[in-house]
Amino acid sequence: MSAAGAQLPVAVDAMGGDRAPGEIVAGARRAAEELGIPVVLVGPTDGTLGDTGDLAVIPASEVIGMSEDAARGVRTKKDSSLVRAAEAVRDGRACAMVSAGNTGATMASALLRMGRLSGVSRPCIATPLPALGDAPTVLVDAGANSDCQSEWLVQFAQMGAAFYRERYGLERPKVAMLSIGEEPSKGNTLTKETHALLAARKSDSFEFVGNAEGRDLLAGGVHVIVTDGFTGNVALKTLEGALRVFMDILLEVFAATPENKAAGDVLFPALLQRAEPLDPENTGGAMLLGLKGVCIISHGSSSSRAIVNAVRAGHDLAKGDLSGKLAAAVAGPS
Amino acid sequence: MSAAGAQLPVAVDAMGGDRAPGEIVAGARRAAEELGIPVVLVGPTDGTLGDTGDLAVIPASEVIGMSEDAARGVRTKKDSSLVRAAEAVRDGRACAMVSAGNTGATMASALLRMGRLSGVSRPCIATPLPALGDAPTVLVDAGANSDCQSEWLVQFAQMGAAFYRERYGLERPKVAMLSIGEEPSKGNTLTKETHALLAARKSDSFEFVGNAEGRDLLAGGVHVIVTDGFTGNVALKTLEGALRVFMDILLEVFAATPENKAAGDVLFPALLQRAEPLDPENTGGAMLLGLKGVCIISHGSSSSRAIVNAVRAGHDLAKGDLSGKLAAAVAGPS
Repeated sequence: MSAAGAQLPVAVDAMGGDRAPGEIVAGARRAAEELGIPVVLVGPTDGTLGDTGDLAVIPASEVIGMSEDAARGVRTKKDSSLVRAAEAVRDGRACAMVSAGNTGATMASALLRMGRLSGVSRPCIATPLPALGDAPTVLVDAGANSDCQSEWLVQFAQMGAAFYRERYGLERPKVAMLSIGEEPSKGNTLTKETHALLAARKSDSFEFVGNAEGRDLLAGGVHVIVTDGFTGNVALKTLEGALRVFMDILLEVFAATPENKAAGDVLFPALLQRAEPLDPENTGGAMLLGLKGVCIISHGSSSSRAIVNAVRAGHDLAKGDLSGKLAAAVAGPS
Repeated sequence: MSAAGAQLPVAVDAMGGDRAPGEIVAGARRAAEELGIPVVLVGPTDGTLGDTGDLAVIPASEVIGMSEDAARGVRTKKDSSLVRAAEAVRDGRACAMVSAGNTGATMASALLRMGRLSGVSRPCIATPLPALGDAPTVLVDAGANSDCQSEWLVQFAQMGAAFYRERYGLERPKVAMLSIGEEPSKGNTLTKETHALLAARKSDSFEFVGNAEGRDLLAGGVHVIVTDGFTGNVALKTLEGALRVFMDILLEVFAATPENKAAGDVLFPALLQRAEPLDPENTGGAMLLGLKGVCIISHGSSSSRAIVNAVRAGHDLAKGDLSGKLAAAVAGPS
């Protein structure tokens, strides 16, 4: 993608996500109307999408289901909204794609249609974590590669830092290795090897600060936390589960008695406001790093608000030539 | 340990933990006084322990620090409270040991002094997770083995199920593999291999229910979740961090205004009561499985209450001949 690509629309997979197409189309329309970002929908043109307003639609007659086998879906459904969205980026008809659909199929479509950046061993998923502090923490790889080599993790660190710089404007992000103790000797073979490689490398583009632990994911203080996609995905879903349990307890107690309900009514607005940074809808979604094009992976439960934020992220990253910067990050003397 | 071992005292490492010796000694005394369980302290006899009441003390002049290198600590400090506690179990002077000290050194002391059970490839840590439902979920391995083989994980499943049966009285616990998707094809090489081994094996002693995900850790429904010690420890610390962040938000909002404080005063007792099962002090601590003796690993921040629960767990498990049952679990036609 060149910087000129930012004049192109963001392609939104209208059929991807638990709440598709309603919330997805609504979010795409809001992004175009409220932010003035050009958007094109990808999906069926038979009326399924409902009122699409002024938005153009790239026709796609098929849908890859949320729990469908990713590789087979992409191979057999060549006219699916996911595959057509990735082709729109590849063919220079869109600057970025956004999908809240099947994550595996989103990755496969983007990888197969856009292709890998030169020099990148494996694309990876960068997921901005809900964070309370000023600076978000980005987890990378959050699920693309279950079995990893240390050299790939070094590239995840390089790409994660380049992404962070572009997305959040921090010149030299702090990068840590997710492990099970602060000392370099703590961890498994992969983390110890990666730790050694990262520590040995002097980089102007990020500061390697050593190991982080699971409790650092939400604590702020580190900007990029590097891990293999298996551990990253387990950690991410563990966070989601813990936050849900805590919310359930809170709502249950609030509802238990009239006194509790009255007290809850007092506290609820403040809690919502304070916890707002924890809402994944605000992060703009996860990002597939290492491809010749921008691909935003939104949460399956995305509402229109999540899609608005995802469209904005995709637009901004394409405009900033993220792909060019990622290629430079893995190629450079970093 | 034979069942007769339950007449022996539980050996409590008086110098282990962030709040040692005060809270540890207090907990040991309470266990003896309130539960009638025989307890022996292990630590210095120079007055450091304060008022030890009626409890006997096994002398130990050295302490392995919380962040000291575990292997070196155990090798060089032969008169440490941790090493002496493990020797008390080995020599038949105690039925179980409890320590809130350096986890690595606790594992090393117990492994080196008590020895591994015949047939066990690797001992592992079983950690009961905070759980809201009736049945707790036990995570195994929660941190003993960073690099694992699938055969070891099968033994973790066998030992975890035997532990669960003994500790919680459930005849045939449900065992799941921690992975990143429900389908057997989801995960890394280790989880896929282990899944195949567990699925192929018909067991009367547990029911293998397939993969679990990070969000299942607190959700209840599965009794034993099997993973390698690296992933398990990352997940455990991720849970701890998430719960702490949520508590911090709650307390901050409660304190923000007088109105909030009044509302908080109404809700706090109900929240505390509802969230009580999430308090790790209630679980009795983690357990090192696979040794010729019972070893309870308490959280470093343990209060006297946590020590009371740990002493009770150690006593009950020794009385039930846990070690014998673990040996049978890995040896039998399972």
